[in-house]
Amino acid sequence: MPLASTPEPPYYAVIFTSARTGDDASAYEETARRMHELASGRPGFLGVETAREGLGITVSYWADEESIAAWKADAEHAVAQERGRARWYEAYTVRVARVERAYAFTRPAPDAP
Amino acid sequence: MPLASTPEPPYYAVIFTSARTGDDASAYEETARRMHELASGRPGFLGVETAREGLGITVSYWADEESIAAWKADAEHAVAQERGRARWYEAYTVRVARVERAYAFTRPAPDAP
Repeated sequence: MPLASTPEPPYYAVIFTSARTGDDASAYEETARRMHELASGRPGFLGVETAREGLGITVSYWADEESIAAWKADAEHAVAQERGRARWYEAYTVRVARVERAYAFTRPAPDAP
Repeated sequence: MPLASTPEPPYYAVIFTSARTGDDASAYEETARRMHELASGRPGFLGVETAREGLGITVSYWADEESIAAWKADAEHAVAQERGRARWYEAYTVRVARVERAYAFTRPAPDAP
């Protein structure tokens, strides 16, 4: 997964950090893939970045708080959230944050010989 | 690393996402460890969560923007940032965001027999 390309701030970030139970891993992976696909098609979706190394961190970026609330309430997403609490997560935290400023670095291409 | 325990919002998050070159990995790891140690002792530091899976994501939490600016300007941190651009990172993005709301889930303990 590449770094997300997002517009100039302000926009919103949903920081989802989690510890997994390890149960039911293949259903979890399939649901995570499907949620990524569904979220990507929602109005206001700007991008997502995710990594897991023991702890899992997924940061999704959104145009505004309304888009975040609508995605949270999506019916298929609500079912996945419920299953997450029932089976997949030991614990998680969701933080909704307003991105106020951002800057990026990209390595310059090496000089041509 | 456990999930970070943070106070009631508002507070600030610095979302640092990166792609590594793979160069000089042991010096990178040692510097990352040292930066974690230094940041943890700074005024206004509230916690940090990190994971790498190809993409790296580190989210640090801070009481206010002044604490973030002071940490960015720390002399030893500035040297590490410069070395990061010179050797360790293909690309990175830093986003400074104000956490407006948060909620958490912890799995209930199983019933006693």
